[in-house]
Amino acid sequence: MHCLHVALGARSYPIIIGRGLLSDNATFAPYLGEGGVLVVTNDTVAPLYLSRVVATIGAQDCQQLVLPDGEEYKTLDTLNRVFDSLLEARRTRDVTLVALGGGVIGDLTGFAAACYQRGVDFIQVPTTLLAQVDSSVGGKTAVNHRLGKNMIGAFHQPKAVFIDTDTLASLPDRQFVAGIAEVIKYGLIADTAFFEWLEANIQALLARDHECLVHAIETSCRLKAKVVSDDERESGIRAILNLGHTFGHAIETHQGYKSWLHGEAIAAGMVLAARVSAAVGWLSAGDVERITALITAAGLPVAPPGDIGIEDFLELMAVDKKARGGRIHLVLLKEIGNPVVTADYDQAALRAVLSST
Amino acid sequence: MHCLHVALGARSYPIIIGRGLLSDNATFAPYLGEGGVLVVTNDTVAPLYLSRVVATIGAQDCQQLVLPDGEEYKTLDTLNRVFDSLLEARRTRDVTLVALGGGVIGDLTGFAAACYQRGVDFIQVPTTLLAQVDSSVGGKTAVNHRLGKNMIGAFHQPKAVFIDTDTLASLPDRQFVAGIAEVIKYGLIADTAFFEWLEANIQALLARDHECLVHAIETSCRLKAKVVSDDERESGIRAILNLGHTFGHAIETHQGYKSWLHGEAIAAGMVLAARVSAAVGWLSAGDVERITALITAAGLPVAPPGDIGIEDFLELMAVDKKARGGRIHLVLLKEIGNPVVTADYDQAALRAVLSST
Repeated sequence: MHCLHVALGARSYPIIIGRGLLSDNATFAPYLGEGGVLVVTNDTVAPLYLSRVVATIGAQDCQQLVLPDGEEYKTLDTLNRVFDSLLEARRTRDVTLVALGGGVIGDLTGFAAACYQRGVDFIQVPTTLLAQVDSSVGGKTAVNHRLGKNMIGAFHQPKAVFIDTDTLASLPDRQFVAGIAEVIKYGLIADTAFFEWLEANIQALLARDHECLVHAIETSCRLKAKVVSDDERESGIRAILNLGHTFGHAIETHQGYKSWLHGEAIAAGMVLAARVSAAVGWLSAGDVERITALITAAGLPVAPPGDIGIEDFLELMAVDKKARGGRIHLVLLKEIGNPVVTADYDQAALRAVLSST
Repeated sequence: MHCLHVALGARSYPIIIGRGLLSDNATFAPYLGEGGVLVVTNDTVAPLYLSRVVATIGAQDCQQLVLPDGEEYKTLDTLNRVFDSLLEARRTRDVTLVALGGGVIGDLTGFAAACYQRGVDFIQVPTTLLAQVDSSVGGKTAVNHRLGKNMIGAFHQPKAVFIDTDTLASLPDRQFVAGIAEVIKYGLIADTAFFEWLEANIQALLARDHECLVHAIETSCRLKAKVVSDDERESGIRAILNLGHTFGHAIETHQGYKSWLHGEAIAAGMVLAARVSAAVGWLSAGDVERITALITAAGLPVAPPGDIGIEDFLELMAVDKKARGGRIHLVLLKEIGNPVVTADYDQAALRAVLSST
């Protein structure tokens, strides 16, 4: 079992990584309040893990809420179903929410915890690789709006994150590969040696070799915990975590969140960010090639869907949270492992890259 | 012009009280960001003050959103209309929201500001007495749920509060009187001398004597600012501000927020709290009499509506945010000016008071 620490003063919490955590009676008890529990999950994860988690929590006073699976349900309407459940059971501020599932369940349940009675406790139990290495850590919670992804949300840190690596065994290949996109991101923004390790071990990782998996998850979580501790509310350095996301969110919004997975959109977005970085004279052509090769080897897309044009991109990117004062802020790369957040780049380079996809 | 200060470190802000603030070009400018403005108001206030406020803000980039007036519109659905407006105009994190209206507009606009892109700036411009002395100060924002008032919300402090006492001239008597309930509350929970001043000056206050009004508003805001500075997130002392509110919220929820005004429900709730305080042996019968007399003199109700029974009360109070660990926490009075927040009182006294209304 590995234990990492997100250092945020009174809001600090552990990330616990191990096999069989969901069946271990010692997992939840130290982090539960006295006001009962609501486990929120979706109809894909529920048949796999819900009864096990409820048994492990062991509280007599444990409710369950099973939501439909999919990014298209990450809405205010679905959020209100969580409030319905809590209020029908007369839950007070002592309740603890447990988010059992992928990024959608984690973001939505976390936002419900942020808002219910102006803030209650919650625990993240991510069951997808993407949620384990990214969305479950750091306290960003949100739902989508038809005009933009994650536009309605809050910063609300969990009390703990439990990553049971056994849950990855049941993850479909496409979802697993989508999670690899965020793992590659950490190499690109923070750790050249990790990027090189990924180049050497991508096949073993795709084969879900357990040792490789734990190394990838632990390294990703450690890098994320460090960035979040330095800049909880994204007033500065935290924005590097958005590498590829301004492009990726535009792709997802253009598709109505229904076609590509988040990790797939981010993979294509990272290649676009690398190409813009090269076009403005920062990243070498060789490094763009390495990045494209690793993402290709992972089985992820390296270009956006054919039906999204340059004007779609620019319009959708302009409303992204990274846009300020009228200019689109981007995370670009000086080199692999060395990101820069900037609005001060050659707009023509951005247009050139977007029109040649 | 009077200027008070809510001391909350990096989240500190001024409360500015004066005549004609809404027509003064110097009012808004220091508190606006670079990302444009959205003024949110309702269809009662809009014809009176909206064009004046928009002219005073003077920004070319100033949007307006006029919502229907009434507590029954303080919902997630109405909240989403604010997000629609912001996203249709492609507002970024630099936008500033301005809440122009009473408590409903302030709470809803503040919550929209708390959630939009995980938090943007907002300014409170309260136009009712109740909002001026209570809800606009302190950062509590929320919307209602069909099963409970203010159940979905956030702590999100404004950048500034502008109280233009001229706006009270247009306030209907019933709304003005409802605001007096919260003014009386400050005397009861924090300031015996202010309570005595109210006993002596209630008729002048009801006649809207300007000097009396300013004294009442300034004293109320100063007391509230002190309590909020000491306990921003209501982990302790701030709960005294809820005197009468656990009873009052039960009344409002039972009526579907449609019949009594908030201040009216709180007035009856304060009398109930005083009577329970006497029933447990704390407050003297004479003080209950003084409280009842002042609330009567103000023209406010001293008993709940006839159709809400004891079981309704107990059930609705149990889900109130002040309920923890299964017991209903109440704000009671040891004497006038000396409140105590407790769940450790004789339940029979509570039942006795509720069954004799």
